[in-house]
Amino acid sequence: MMVVVSYDINTESKSGQRRLRHVAKICLDYGQRVQNSVFECKVNSMQLELMKERLLDEIDDSQDSLYFFNLGKNYKNRIKSYGIKEVINLESPVIF
Amino acid sequence: MMVVVSYDINTESKSGQRRLRHVAKICLDYGQRVQNSVFECKVNSMQLELMKERLLDEIDDSQDSLYFFNLGKNYKNRIKSYGIKEVINLESPVIF
Repeated sequence: MMVVVSYDINTESKSGQRRLRHVAKICLDYGQRVQNSVFECKVNSMQLELMKERLLDEIDDSQDSLYFFNLGKNYKNRIKSYGIKEVINLESPVIF
Repeated sequence: MMVVVSYDINTESKSGQRRLRHVAKICLDYGQRVQNSVFECKVNSMQLELMKERLLDEIDDSQDSLYFFNLGKNYKNRIKSYGIKEVINLESPVIF
């Protein structure tokens, strides 16, 4: 099934910036980044529970927001995107 | 039906900051903000087309990204959210 993961992490503190990096890394374990804080994750139910557990361990639910939108198995017609596709990974250093 | 709208607007320029404000305003016409650049919009097909048209007129598709995730009519079990709910509207001035 396709699950869209979207988060807002409060990065005003150093620990928030670390949470942001960790949350992004966890999402990359399960899917691809489509926007700065939005990921498309093709997962089965077990992977979904594991991803959720790892992300919930990471976020601070008094400051951060985490959403899962489950598009199910027949998701292709449920997603429409416009504009730029590739996303510059803001966390990883750009090497020339 | 419930449609999740998510956008990344390039705000490096003044025109980008204006696009961001306009895109947020359009989304607020159709739904509620759940994260900084993520909205839940309960719309019928006609409203969806109109919202899309207005948003596509607004974004610069060489710099911005816009996604529509259609959760359909039976959407309640498709959405799981954790952490903070209310979102501070970054565009509007905070009045004390």
